[in-house]
Amino acid sequence: MQSNMILIPIALAILGLLFMLIKMSWVKKQSPGSEKMQQISKSIKEGALAFLSAEYKLLLIFVLIASIALFGISMFVETTSWMIVPAFVIGAIFSALAGNIGMRIATEANARTAEAAKTSLPQALKVSFGGGTVMGLGVAGLAVLGLSLFFLFFTNHFMSSTGDFYGNMTIVLEALAGFSLGAESIALFARVGGGIYTKAADVGADLVGKVEAGIPEDDPRNPATIADNVGDNVGDVAGMGADLFGSYVATVLAAMVLGNYVIRDMSATTQFTDDFNNMGPILLPIVIAGVGILASIIGTFLVSIKNNDAKEAQVQRALDIGNWGAILITVIASYFLIQYMLPETMQMNFFGEGSKTIPSMNVFYSCIIGLAVGALISMVTAHYTSLGKKPVLDIVKNSSTGAATNIIAGLAVGMKSTFLSVLLFAAAIYGSYELAGFYGVALAASAMMATTAMQLAIDAFGPIADNAGGVAEMSNLEDHVRERTDILDSVGNTTAAVGKGFAIASAALTALALFAAYVTFTGIDGINIFKADVLAALFVGGMIPVVFSALAMKSVGKAAMEMVQEVRRQFREIPGILEGTGTPEYAKCVDISTKAALKEMILPGLITIISPILIGAFFGAEPLGGYMAGVCVSGVMWAIFQNNAGGAWDNAKKSFEAGVEIDGKMTFKGSEAHKAAVTGDTVGDPFKDTSGPSMNILIKLTCLIGLVIAPILGGHHSDAELSPNQVIESIEALNVANFEVEISVIEDKATATVLYVKDGKSFKETYAGSETSVRADIEKLKNSLK
Amino acid sequence: MQSNMILIPIALAILGLLFMLIKMSWVKKQSPGSEKMQQISKSIKEGALAFLSAEYKLLLIFVLIASIALFGISMFVETTSWMIVPAFVIGAIFSALAGNIGMRIATEANARTAEAAKTSLPQALKVSFGGGTVMGLGVAGLAVLGLSLFFLFFTNHFMSSTGDFYGNMTIVLEALAGFSLGAESIALFARVGGGIYTKAADVGADLVGKVEAGIPEDDPRNPATIADNVGDNVGDVAGMGADLFGSYVATVLAAMVLGNYVIRDMSATTQFTDDFNNMGPILLPIVIAGVGILASIIGTFLVSIKNNDAKEAQVQRALDIGNWGAILITVIASYFLIQYMLPETMQMNFFGEGSKTIPSMNVFYSCIIGLAVGALISMVTAHYTSLGKKPVLDIVKNSSTGAATNIIAGLAVGMKSTFLSVLLFAAAIYGSYELAGFYGVALAASAMMATTAMQLAIDAFGPIADNAGGVAEMSNLEDHVRERTDILDSVGNTTAAVGKGFAIASAALTALALFAAYVTFTGIDGINIFKADVLAALFVGGMIPVVFSALAMKSVGKAAMEMVQEVRRQFREIPGILEGTGTPEYAKCVDISTKAALKEMILPGLITIISPILIGAFFGAEPLGGYMAGVCVSGVMWAIFQNNAGGAWDNAKKSFEAGVEIDGKMTFKGSEAHKAAVTGDTVGDPFKDTSGPSMNILIKLTCLIGLVIAPILGGHHSDAELSPNQVIESIEALNVANFEVEISVIEDKATATVLYVKDGKSFKETYAGSETSVRADIEKLKNSLK
Repeated sequence: MQSNMILIPIALAILGLLFMLIKMSWVKKQSPGSEKMQQISKSIKEGALAFLSAEYKLLLIFVLIASIALFGISMFVETTSWMIVPAFVIGAIFSALAGNIGMRIATEANARTAEAAKTSLPQALKVSFGGGTVMGLGVAGLAVLGLSLFFLFFTNHFMSSTGDFYGNMTIVLEALAGFSLGAESIALFARVGGGIYTKAADVGADLVGKVEAGIPEDDPRNPATIADNVGDNVGDVAGMGADLFGSYVATVLAAMVLGNYVIRDMSATTQFTDDFNNMGPILLPIVIAGVGILASIIGTFLVSIKNNDAKEAQVQRALDIGNWGAILITVIASYFLIQYMLPETMQMNFFGEGSKTIPSMNVFYSCIIGLAVGALISMVTAHYTSLGKKPVLDIVKNSSTGAATNIIAGLAVGMKSTFLSVLLFAAAIYGSYELAGFYGVALAASAMMATTAMQLAIDAFGPIADNAGGVAEMSNLEDHVRERTDILDSVGNTTAAVGKGFAIASAALTALALFAAYVTFTGIDGINIFKADVLAALFVGGMIPVVFSALAMKSVGKAAMEMVQEVRRQFREIPGILEGTGTPEYAKCVDISTKAALKEMILPGLITIISPILIGAFFGAEPLGGYMAGVCVSGVMWAIFQNNAGGAWDNAKKSFEAGVEIDGKMTFKGSEAHKAAVTGDTVGDPFKDTSGPSMNILIKLTCLIGLVIAPILGGHHSDAELSPNQVIESIEALNVANFEVEISVIEDKATATVLYVKDGKSFKETYAGSETSVRADIEKLKNSLK
Repeated sequence: MQSNMILIPIALAILGLLFMLIKMSWVKKQSPGSEKMQQISKSIKEGALAFLSAEYKLLLIFVLIASIALFGISMFVETTSWMIVPAFVIGAIFSALAGNIGMRIATEANARTAEAAKTSLPQALKVSFGGGTVMGLGVAGLAVLGLSLFFLFFTNHFMSSTGDFYGNMTIVLEALAGFSLGAESIALFARVGGGIYTKAADVGADLVGKVEAGIPEDDPRNPATIADNVGDNVGDVAGMGADLFGSYVATVLAAMVLGNYVIRDMSATTQFTDDFNNMGPILLPIVIAGVGILASIIGTFLVSIKNNDAKEAQVQRALDIGNWGAILITVIASYFLIQYMLPETMQMNFFGEGSKTIPSMNVFYSCIIGLAVGALISMVTAHYTSLGKKPVLDIVKNSSTGAATNIIAGLAVGMKSTFLSVLLFAAAIYGSYELAGFYGVALAASAMMATTAMQLAIDAFGPIADNAGGVAEMSNLEDHVRERTDILDSVGNTTAAVGKGFAIASAALTALALFAAYVTFTGIDGINIFKADVLAALFVGGMIPVVFSALAMKSVGKAAMEMVQEVRRQFREIPGILEGTGTPEYAKCVDISTKAALKEMILPGLITIISPILIGAFFGAEPLGGYMAGVCVSGVMWAIFQNNAGGAWDNAKKSFEAGVEIDGKMTFKGSEAHKAAVTGDTVGDPFKDTSGPSMNILIKLTCLIGLVIAPILGGHHSDAELSPNQVIESIEALNVANFEVEISVIEDKATATVLYVKDGKSFKETYAGSETSVRADIEKLKNSLK
């Protein structure tokens, strides 16, 4: 049993997928409503599927090229097996599949939710949350299944009882990184493409429909309506599904890699052994992930309301109970799992501080720090973006003097929200590292991500409810249906904001864990920004998220303009369209969004993927580390800034729907202040749904690429480090890889550092004394290695 | 002569100040125009002086507290003399003086420029540029005079022919850093306070005047008009003067400190000597600065136009000739100065690469890199912000679909402009470092700043012309007067944008030079972001510019709202105000801006100053280095983003004045698209005139504070680095400071590092071998030090 511990997550993943199938068939069994509703639902589904299949075709080319490149790497790098290629391809396919499952169920659930809302709010919640549950379990199940099956397969293939454990495990994890790379690359394109699609349609539909023609949201007379609803599915659902799939895999992978370093550190004196095939610290994160699926399933049962007259607060509480229930179960399980699977104390090397003895409970405390900081960051996010709180009210107040002051206020809110978020985040890094090194950091992230299934269920039910409202509006259902779906939608907006707090915190911690794995893997002496090339790379890295965001926003602006022109044209040219007698050409608008999204997602995607490769290839491992850090620092700021500014603008606009008091006067929809708030919301749209959420993927993907290409950077690193009085020794005669000597002589003292890799382990020897004695020492070492 | 080289910059600074006095009396001799014009000019001057004196009173408290703190530091730190306190105070006074001189001449020159424009454009240029010249020479003259006099005094006081040169010079430069710290602190408050003042008045005046009441800019019926014009002077003139004074001093200081390290490195084998009291590398930057003043004076003679019908292009060319003339003279002079003052080859330690031999000409090439990159960044800036170029046209085009798309486009332009700017900047770091280490980086910055007098003259003439236009408008002068001042104003906007390119590039390079000086000074082993505390501090540092910008923007928004309310009140309550028969209460608006600016500048200022002190005190030297790097990386991005977005919005709005083609139709002022562009411009106002330009000061001040408190961080550093198996040796018995031993034993090999400071020099010894032998080696070393 213990030695087959990997079977546990496999079993739990399968359980999750089975439960998903049950839930899926339950949702499909619900009444899909009138023919008109089915028709609308079908149009949305077809538009979304058409986009996804066009997207996948384009991504096929990317996967092909990347596979060839990875195969090339695996050919001339010892620690990379060619099996990274199938792992990469399957990762990409699973990621697409995760998005696809979510999208299909969401487009099935929308009309069914509207239909259920005809009779009861509890039932509408059940259907929409059921749809979310399918998606959440699909993502989590596929992620854990893929990771653990590949891990099982790779360990059987590469690990031998005789060979060097650390070296072989490195090959296993490097191949497994391919799975994560595939998932995260697809996630990037899906997020950016979906984000451009949805916001081009949304902004375009709003600008002409709401503002110019004065017709309500989701009105069937608006030619961009279907595109708008398709957008919700390809952006908020499929994009988010692929995104979280990628995050989840990357987080678990990073923790596994760092677990391998723990084993290496502990094997420095005597070979590490435990009851789990000697790989307890590596297996722990994936077992926790598996348990998180089970906890999420239990959590979904806790989500229900009884009262048909329930308001936002009750729905919110139902979701909170489910969410925190799942988290609590996971925490308790983690406590026992950590006690069970980790040795009581562990030896870890702390950079610059030598080896420390760490009690395994420190790892648990790191998890708690992760969860606490995640929850606190979510609270900060909620504070800055919620209706009725000071920041949003501030924006509302500033709307009374026009769009300009509304925008200034919104930007300021987004920027200001970085303060507490970043302090908390810095505290999480510091605290979890102090407790258990970068393994602690990785497990803090893993703890945050463990209940991904549940969190995604909560996140995904929002767009389903939103779409249900659209279906209700387009099929002219009674007002109370829309009111009920609006309650669900509104709660969905809040949970989405809270989810974003967890998402960015866990993404950043994961990125740091990957960064740590990268530094350890390359064997470089940390990332020292007192070196000019590293510092320059730090700046270049810091620029990437900014330019990425600019490209995404510009794409949205461009596509929205095209959409506006097209809608205006239809209003002008199709007779009777505004009276409801002419039929708009919905397909043309769908087509514009599709083409724009596919075209515009390429450049930001390629910049993300190619830049780190170029930096690594031309400047070496340490500058690439600086680049990664720059991307992370800047990416975190811009993610928080954009997400929160966008969220705050959105709710400032929504405040006018119920009416708000400005300078003692009640102000409503349709007022000048409301118009200013609509402008702010439109600016915020690409912030919060296109560029903002892409930042998470950007920073993780950057670090993942670094980790995957790390094995080929060793040589460059030595180049970059070479100075006139360094000597590269020929390694041909030696039984090691990458033998580097650095001697520096100051006054009459010489110091020398020798770096070399033997049996997959890197060694560093330091000598000091007179130049003659140091050179003699090095000769002695060389002879011992021949 | 050679040994009194410091007298050269003193003489050149005095020459500059004399020329300034001549120019000042010439400007004052020009006709100040009609009584009404004089009256208006006087109101502006009085408002500005009232603000400045209120500001200075508040800053007196700050200077007092900071002086006490500095005195405290000097009491218990060996390398800091109490003379840092007078240096700090004089630095603060000079900075205020520099702003004050500029502000006084600008308020004198505005009406005189308007009067001159009655008869001729060449004369108007002469007067306005004359005003700018006074300011430029005042700033540069005071900076060079203050620095070189203090340097002369301190070297006479602290340097003895017998003592340790490096140690004594460190005390000299540490005291001199006080001068820079004083200048930069005042600059920060002046920039933020002035920026809030000017934009609160501007935004307030525009929102009610232009947008609501439909009266033109600078109309005397608008109660906020005087406040608006006062704002131009306290923000764009006094704020900029203090800012550039601080920049200039910081840049020269950083280069001098790094010059001292060059001398230390070269003294490693034999004591460095040269004909300049053995301090050629330290004196070089200040001599170049002195020569820059002379070159600027010559340059000002090249600025003139002949033709009364000249357009923007001719005026621009006249300024370009002057600017590039001055730069060319400085470059040629630098070539000979470098040959003359530096040894033919220099030994420099490159971190992690050991000692390298650098030909002195490499320093010259670094200067060329600095100038080339500065010019290229300016071109990039110009591209993204100039009328008629694609980015601005893009914003114009996006204005046709409303304010939201205008804003999205403007944000995207600002964000995108970071791409080339940062790449160029990274290339400058990399290139100048490769050529001549951080001394090269510092001299690249010095070269950019050398012609500060000329650049400031060009920068300052813009607001003078802008104010002249205001005076013309308010005194109902003939239209051709306003046309002429508008030509000057428009050129001023372009040169301001170009100047900003230089400013941010030089500020960032200066910050890096200070950063390098800090790392070297503290003797830490670089800044390694693979340590969790350093990484956490990097994130916290990255957050500071964002929050700083948020506070500045929010302050502008808040004060502008108050201004709007007040103007609305006056329009409502003062009879006949809009018909021109009632007199607005200008003073009330001036008062609102003054109070808001003073109140709101405090928090961002204190955050900037206190945060690095807290980080240093609680976490030690290396995390503080990470914090500095975070501030620099993030600050550079946000500076470029905000400045360029603001500039682009401004010119997108201006495009409508001459009319622009959108989708084949000519669109003018007053159109819906123009209104959208006005909204964008209003959002851009605080970006480009409040938060954006403050970033430069923020990053430099952060690094300066680090440098000043560096001496007290040594102890914390050793704490932070300690791990269970490290041993702190008692230093009481030893003849050294700060003796630290780190021993780490892995398998049967021990390595040890010993750090200690002797005679102001820090030493690092490394030992390896068996644990016994290593401990014996350390004992041996200890005995040798007793």
